[in-house]
Amino acid sequence: MRLMEEKILSEGKVLPGGILKVGSFLNQQLDMVFFKEMAKEIARLFTNDKVTKILTVEASGIAIAVAAGLEMNIPVVFAKKHQTTNLDGGVYCANVYSFTHGTTYQIVVSEDYLNQNDTVLLVDDFLANGKALEGLCEIVSQANSSLAGAAIAIEKHFQGGGAALRSKGIRIESLAKIKSMGDDGSIEFF
Amino acid sequence: MRLMEEKILSEGKVLPGGILKVGSFLNQQLDMVFFKEMAKEIARLFTNDKVTKILTVEASGIAIAVAAGLEMNIPVVFAKKHQTTNLDGGVYCANVYSFTHGTTYQIVVSEDYLNQNDTVLLVDDFLANGKALEGLCEIVSQANSSLAGAAIAIEKHFQGGGAALRSKGIRIESLAKIKSMGDDGSIEFF
Repeated sequence: MRLMEEKILSEGKVLPGGILKVGSFLNQQLDMVFFKEMAKEIARLFTNDKVTKILTVEASGIAIAVAAGLEMNIPVVFAKKHQTTNLDGGVYCANVYSFTHGTTYQIVVSEDYLNQNDTVLLVDDFLANGKALEGLCEIVSQANSSLAGAAIAIEKHFQGGGAALRSKGIRIESLAKIKSMGDDGSIEFF
Repeated sequence: MRLMEEKILSEGKVLPGGILKVGSFLNQQLDMVFFKEMAKEIARLFTNDKVTKILTVEASGIAIAVAAGLEMNIPVVFAKKHQTTNLDGGVYCANVYSFTHGTTYQIVVSEDYLNQNDTVLLVDDFLANGKALEGLCEIVSQANSSLAGAAIAIEKHFQGGGAALRSKGIRIESLAKIKSMGDDGSIEFF
């Protein structure tokens, strides 16, 4: 998606350690005009897949998932990062290792919101090492739902998560796919 | 908003301790058809207020804030609950006491995303004791932004937060305002 690449080049900031800061439009501050365009593109990519639910993980995935859900007119379910008192009854859950924080956390979805009749589209803002997306795939599998694939705003391809998931046969559509980021702040796309 | 009251009565569940579970449409699973209606109503209520930014707090506030932002075509900023490595530079921050968890946490917004030229609409899913909304007001004040008011999906009026904030002159528009919830699961609206 050309617009996404332009946005990253004009507003993104490369920080040491392979961090791409896109706080001004995708994270923390959310550019709604741009979100509408992302949502249209995601809807276009999965228009023939009979998706019944969008699944994401809190917190930063919620925004793009909601934009896509509004465009596609289908419910959004988000996995919570810890089991809370507001979830009663049975749950699906998966462990996710966070490279950013060096810890493992649990993502949890109530059994009420996904089942074998659902076809699920995973949506998230970033794909790097792919651990969060793997956890969401695990939840889709526990629910016996079908998986249409994943729509990602920005894939940091050099971190390997996308390649690992695609090698398992999972369809991943990234609106921007970053090949490399240089110490000089340069960004190269596929 | 009649539709919201009907939705709460048909899908909401009252749990002991004054907890209202609306996971099937507002929290965890998000009903996008319904979100579009909420967004239209929020846009209508604040149509003359020259709002330039919507401000909410992660995680569950993001969904309704994004729906409203898409409808109103203005950027959404969300406060993060802890200062993370992805925020550099100056920040606005406020302490928020959580009655649910019995702890105080910090909400943080980068100085890059709010300033004295902004007119801010606060958006959140719930208003109970009002501590989160107070924290957001504090951030708006630190940024020297103007405050248009707050749009809330569900106000649990009996918990007093809305009254306290209104007594300070803050305009609060709640799509449903709950007067009382009975131990028998009954819900009374204003």
